[in-house]
Amino acid sequence: MREIAILGIGQTKVDEHWDISLRDLAVEAALATLQDAGRDTAEALFVGNMLSPLVSGQNQLGALIADWAGLKNAEAVKIEAACGSGATAFRSGLMAVASGEIDSALVVGVEKMTDKAGHDVTAALATAADADYEAEQGVSFVGLNALIMRRYMHEYGWKHADFAPFSINAHANAMHNPFARLHQKITVEGFEKSSMIATPINLLDASPTGDGAAAALMVPAEKVNGNAKKIIVAGSASATDTIAIHSRREPLFLSAAYASAKKAYSQAEVVPKDIDVFELHDAFSIMSALSLEACGFAERGRGIRLGLDNEIGPTGRIPICTRGGLKARGHPVGATGMYQVIEVVQQLREQCGATQVDGARIGMAQNIGGSGATIVTHILKRA
Amino acid sequence: MREIAILGIGQTKVDEHWDISLRDLAVEAALATLQDAGRDTAEALFVGNMLSPLVSGQNQLGALIADWAGLKNAEAVKIEAACGSGATAFRSGLMAVASGEIDSALVVGVEKMTDKAGHDVTAALATAADADYEAEQGVSFVGLNALIMRRYMHEYGWKHADFAPFSINAHANAMHNPFARLHQKITVEGFEKSSMIATPINLLDASPTGDGAAAALMVPAEKVNGNAKKIIVAGSASATDTIAIHSRREPLFLSAAYASAKKAYSQAEVVPKDIDVFELHDAFSIMSALSLEACGFAERGRGIRLGLDNEIGPTGRIPICTRGGLKARGHPVGATGMYQVIEVVQQLREQCGATQVDGARIGMAQNIGGSGATIVTHILKRA
Repeated sequence: MREIAILGIGQTKVDEHWDISLRDLAVEAALATLQDAGRDTAEALFVGNMLSPLVSGQNQLGALIADWAGLKNAEAVKIEAACGSGATAFRSGLMAVASGEIDSALVVGVEKMTDKAGHDVTAALATAADADYEAEQGVSFVGLNALIMRRYMHEYGWKHADFAPFSINAHANAMHNPFARLHQKITVEGFEKSSMIATPINLLDASPTGDGAAAALMVPAEKVNGNAKKIIVAGSASATDTIAIHSRREPLFLSAAYASAKKAYSQAEVVPKDIDVFELHDAFSIMSALSLEACGFAERGRGIRLGLDNEIGPTGRIPICTRGGLKARGHPVGATGMYQVIEVVQQLREQCGATQVDGARIGMAQNIGGSGATIVTHILKRA
Repeated sequence: MREIAILGIGQTKVDEHWDISLRDLAVEAALATLQDAGRDTAEALFVGNMLSPLVSGQNQLGALIADWAGLKNAEAVKIEAACGSGATAFRSGLMAVASGEIDSALVVGVEKMTDKAGHDVTAALATAADADYEAEQGVSFVGLNALIMRRYMHEYGWKHADFAPFSINAHANAMHNPFARLHQKITVEGFEKSSMIATPINLLDASPTGDGAAAALMVPAEKVNGNAKKIIVAGSASATDTIAIHSRREPLFLSAAYASAKKAYSQAEVVPKDIDVFELHDAFSIMSALSLEACGFAERGRGIRLGLDNEIGPTGRIPICTRGGLKARGHPVGATGMYQVIEVVQQLREQCGATQVDGARIGMAQNIGGSGATIVTHILKRA
């Protein structure tokens, strides 16, 4: 595979953008990316999105956004893998450039979630689960994660407050990210008093939805030698697990995270301790623990300890969610994987101010679709 | 790009499969393909589908189908470009193998359309159009095509009966395809008397929906030298046009068909007269005329003549829809592009019986998303 560089990035704030349509969010991020890259167009467009058919009555986002971004006659498609759509789109763009078929890929993750009533969005999000054997039983997506969290607490003996450091770290980091949805510090007391959603998941265990778009431009690395902004994709892998949680032999082990991270480590020729920053998929606090464990940063059942031991902040052993994570930057589902990628790029470019990880050279982004059914891992390196 | 071969194909009949679920249709085609290829697994799965979130309440089809087809931990995604989803999935699989990232790609196009009332499916299909500027006006997808057909008849002076040969040819060919949805011959008189849907499009101008799945397995060509079933992908290109018809300078010219065909011809080093068989996207009879024109088989406004002059049958100058086309094989929207690809493979393998094109060596498949917004062209060659 030829080496691929990320030449430009762009994003919108994650928010309730009542005044900006789905296509305009995408175009805003796309044009910011082209500007950042110093290019005026791209050969092909890869869109990551989950909900637009259900929430906006719109399919064919590839053609739509290519049209509105002015990419005349460009190749364009949408890639969907539930909340993992963003990173799967990124990987599709990567493979397209790597194949030699195209020389520049613009990847946009975009989601518009606040145009519908909340119960409609909850039903739409349930399409990430197994429609015939999970959603059919009436269990919502947060309900499925609550089952996993409860099992984890039972199995390993942790109490609810032990999860607080994940959310506290995310909120603290988001204070310094102007694109984050939530700018409010939280405490262990506030975490414990927060409203219950689906026991044991309360409001501060769960990431907020939102509208947003994040994008990146990829090109063959050899064509941009000497460019100071250049970041290399050193590892890229995607794997799946059973879609239904009840089909897994070990429901507390993210086997697709393990498989994709293992492959990405091998491609990048690194081991977990080489990772300077890890943008993981903290849709719920339990997922932070499971991701850290599956990716080799903690033993099974011990991911929680990294939070309790203050190892996850920007100066910790494994800084996570340095721009706020899903928990506080917000989780515009199909866009999230692209936010993670460009946040790693921002770290490697040393653009993160108060939450900059000192001397960050190698960063990892991991995006999850469903309750661990699709997991995509990317490792980026400063060139 | 390294050369890619199609090693196996599989399909289900297009029908109202009330007793087969979405996932089971996909798995049936997937397993038939692996069997045809003599393989027992694939490294990655690319699913083409348009409607499952809306019709089946199911997203994340990549993981779902990988799970149910037994592709443990395989990479898997869904690609969507409305009715062009099938061919975009095929091209995604092609680029993934070409990149060297994976060595075998299983591509499955699948659609389940008959589990909902017809008006629900009509609304779901309208998501292929521009939701804010076309569908918002209440125009259905067939309505948009009716506007194009009416304009074509006005501009070039053709009457409705002149479109009959396209539908008659498709129905005649489908008589010999056991996987086709419709097995009934039609005549010019029957064509003219058929029920009106959206003037001037009547029932026999329009393709029927249906449930179905079609699949193919792709591998690097150099790894299967000497395999008699091997078919090479000689050209592959995808292009877009404006999503809304009213934004096009020339609404009767499929500019994305022109752009993608031109690129595919150039890659395959062929010109239109070299194409032995052309599986085009006859969702409506008007689209046959426009596709033939945009791809260089007829002058603008003259595509109709190829039908009237008996040039589109299996022994004609440019045989189209040799297995029944969308019109009579049926149009399970997100699966259609894959049916087209494997039908070309069947021609190149000389498996088409009464509709076999004599000595077919080079075939083309062209899949359209929306009213010409996404168009993907593939050229296959007998190895």
